[in-house]
Amino acid sequence: MTTPFLQCLVGRLRAEDQFGAWDRKSDATLLKDYIVTKSERRQIPIIGDPDPETLDRVEKYYQAVGLAVERLTGVVASPMMKMSHEGFGRVVLIAGNLVVLSRTLRDVHRFGFEDLAALAAEGMKVASQAATMIEAHPELARA
Amino acid sequence: MTTPFLQCLVGRLRAEDQFGAWDRKSDATLLKDYIVTKSERRQIPIIGDPDPETLDRVEKYYQAVGLAVERLTGVVASPMMKMSHEGFGRVVLIAGNLVVLSRTLRDVHRFGFEDLAALAAEGMKVASQAATMIEAHPELARA
Repeated sequence: MTTPFLQCLVGRLRAEDQFGAWDRKSDATLLKDYIVTKSERRQIPIIGDPDPETLDRVEKYYQAVGLAVERLTGVVASPMMKMSHEGFGRVVLIAGNLVVLSRTLRDVHRFGFEDLAALAAEGMKVASQAATMIEAHPELARA
Repeated sequence: MTTPFLQCLVGRLRAEDQFGAWDRKSDATLLKDYIVTKSERRQIPIIGDPDPETLDRVEKYYQAVGLAVERLTGVVASPMMKMSHEGFGRVVLIAGNLVVLSRTLRDVHRFGFEDLAALAAEGMKVASQAATMIEAHPELARA
């Protein structure tokens, strides 16, 4: 829970809670939907269309990566996502004129992580890659 | 009609015509929807939600810009668009790790050009700007 990425993700989720309905919910409870264990995954059909909540969850994940990148580098990185209704698409994180991250997305209806540790580790890994890219091309990232 | 941009746009539109229904239609007829004269524009409400056809038309316009960029530089530039249902948003053209064009879109329900000459000129202008960006950072654009 102490990684910048998880803090950003929890902050991003709590920002939706305009009326304080989640004040008593723990961070772990809020992040529950991001956890899809191996046995849960096995029960999800291989082919399926993601529902709007799932797409929203993926988008918030990459928004949190962008916020973590900002904490690491001071440069804002904002996501753009392009998805087919079948759960196939692409997400990029953009800082200035630089694409700091580009990922092909597929099987988005099965998006999730084994546990909180895996979510935190993967989020930080992606954020660090993006930060490295910004450090390599600071003039473009700050354009 | 001889600018690379208009050729790309017509090609992009004709690519949708799987059954040859538009074979006898002239290029100018196909581009008709892109022409919104000043007097036509005055009759469109200032605030309005763009319909799917309009969003599609804007996306094809930027796809054609990307194709024109490819003709000019040999580097593929692909658009990503993020729109609110209210017609406000952003479009970027991405080549490799480089954002070669970034535009804020607004009032998309009134998207259009005074005449074919204006459409051709504006499309070529945008494509040239993107090409200049690629020439300035070839190693990132070809990444």
